Amino acid sequence: MNNNSFAVTEPVARLIDEFSKLPGIGPKSAQRLTFYLIRMPYDQAQALAEAMLAVKERITFCQRCQNITEFNPCTICNNPRRDSSRICVVVEPLDALAIERTNAYKGLYHVLHGVISPMNNVGPSELRIAQLLDRIREEEVSEVILATNPSLEGEATAMYIHRLLGGLVPQVTRLARGLPAGGDLEYADDVTLTRALEGRQEF
Amino acid sequence: MNNNSFAVTEPVARLIDEFSKLPGIGPKSAQRLTFYLIRMPYDQAQALAEAMLAVKERITFCQRCQNITEFNPCTICNNPRRDSSRICVVVEPLDALAIERTNAYKGLYHVLHGVISPMNNVGPSELRIAQLLDRIREEEVSEVILATNPSLEGEATAMYIHRLLGGLVPQVTRLARGLPAGGDLEYADDVTLTRALEGRQEF
Repeated sequence: MNNNSFAVTEPVARLIDEFSKLPGIGPKSAQRLTFYLIRMPYDQAQALAEAMLAVKERITFCQRCQNITEFNPCTICNNPRRDSSRICVVVEPLDALAIERTNAYKGLYHVLHGVISPMNNVGPSELRIAQLLDRIREEEVSEVILATNPSLEGEATAMYIHRLLGGLVPQVTRLARGLPAGGDLEYADDVTLTRALEGRQEF
Repeated sequence: MNNNSFAVTEPVARLIDEFSKLPGIGPKSAQRLTFYLIRMPYDQAQALAEAMLAVKERITFCQRCQNITEFNPCTICNNPRRDSSRICVVVEPLDALAIERTNAYKGLYHVLHGVISPMNNVGPSELRIAQLLDRIREEEVSEVILATNPSLEGEATAMYIHRLLGGLVPQVTRLARGLPAGGDLEYADDVTLTRALEGRQEF
C-alpha cells in the first residue's frame, strides 16, 4: 500500500470479520450487512446490539430438557400437569414450540440443539445426547418420541439415538410419515408416498 | 395458547425480529442466527455487539465523496497529491477500495451507496446523486468516470446519471467492457464477447 491508497478502516474490517463468523454468512454477505449497518439509523443498530446482549444475559438452557429458557428449570419441565414419563426429543427449540402449538402433546421435551452432520463437523458429542441419557437413567421414562426432521441428517440422528436407548426405555417411537394435510397425492414425492402406503391405517 | 403452552420468550423473539430486519436475512435465517448466538460464548457475542456499535460511533460519511471514513473529509479527498479534477463514481465503498488497489487511478471518488433498483424500492433519491451534482457544480471537474457494475441495475444507474450530467462536465466515461484477464474466450458469455469485439483495439 502506498500513501495514496486507503484500506477499509479498522472498525469496518472488524465488523465484517465478526459478521462472517456467523453461520450462513460468507464474506460478501458480511460486507453487505456491514455497509447496511453503517447506513442504518443509530438507534436501530443499537436496538440490534442490545437485543443480542439481552439474549445472552437473560436466556439460558433448562438444566433438565436443554430448551432455551428465562427460568431454570423451564416452565414446561416445572409444570406438574405435564406427563413427565414421556420425552419428545427435538432438534431445535422451535420444533418444541411447533409441537406445543398443536396442543396434542402433554409430555416433556429434550432439545438436541442440532443434528449429527459430519459435513458440518457436528458429531454426537456436540449435541445434548449425553444429557438425554442421564435423564433417562435418573427419571422414570416410559416413552421417548424421536421427533427429528424427516431428512437424511434427522433420520441418521434418530437412528443413532435409537441405538443408544436400547434397553434403557420401554418404548421408543417416532412421528408418523405420510401425506401432509392439505397435500396433493399427485404431487407427493416417491418417498412420502411409499411411507404413506407402508403406514396405511384402518379406515 | 393455554397454560401449558409456551412461546419463544421475549428477548429471543425480539432478536429474531431485529435480525430479520437486515437485508438478505429472512425469518428462517434470523431464527438460525438467534439460536447460534444463544449457543455462542458470551464474549464472542459481546465482540459482535461492540463491533457494531464501534462502527456506528466512529464511521461517518465523507462530506465530499460520501465514502465511509473515520476522518471528515476522508484521507483521499484531503490528499493534495490526488487529481481533484477527476471523479470516479462507484456504487459501494468496496468498489473504491478495489480501484485503489490497482494503483492506476489518482483522482477522487464519489460513492453512490447503492444502485437504482425499483424491485427493491431504491429510487435515485435514495442514492447520493444530488451530492454528486452539487460537487460537479462547485468543483472544477474535467472528467466523471461512471464505474458502476456491468449489471442491468449498474448500467441503468450509470445511464440515469449520464443523462443528468449532460453539459455539466466536459467528459463522462465508463470502464471498458471486454474479456477479463486470465479469462477463457471459449467460456466467455455472448454479451462479454460482443462488448470485446465492439471495443477491439489496435494491436
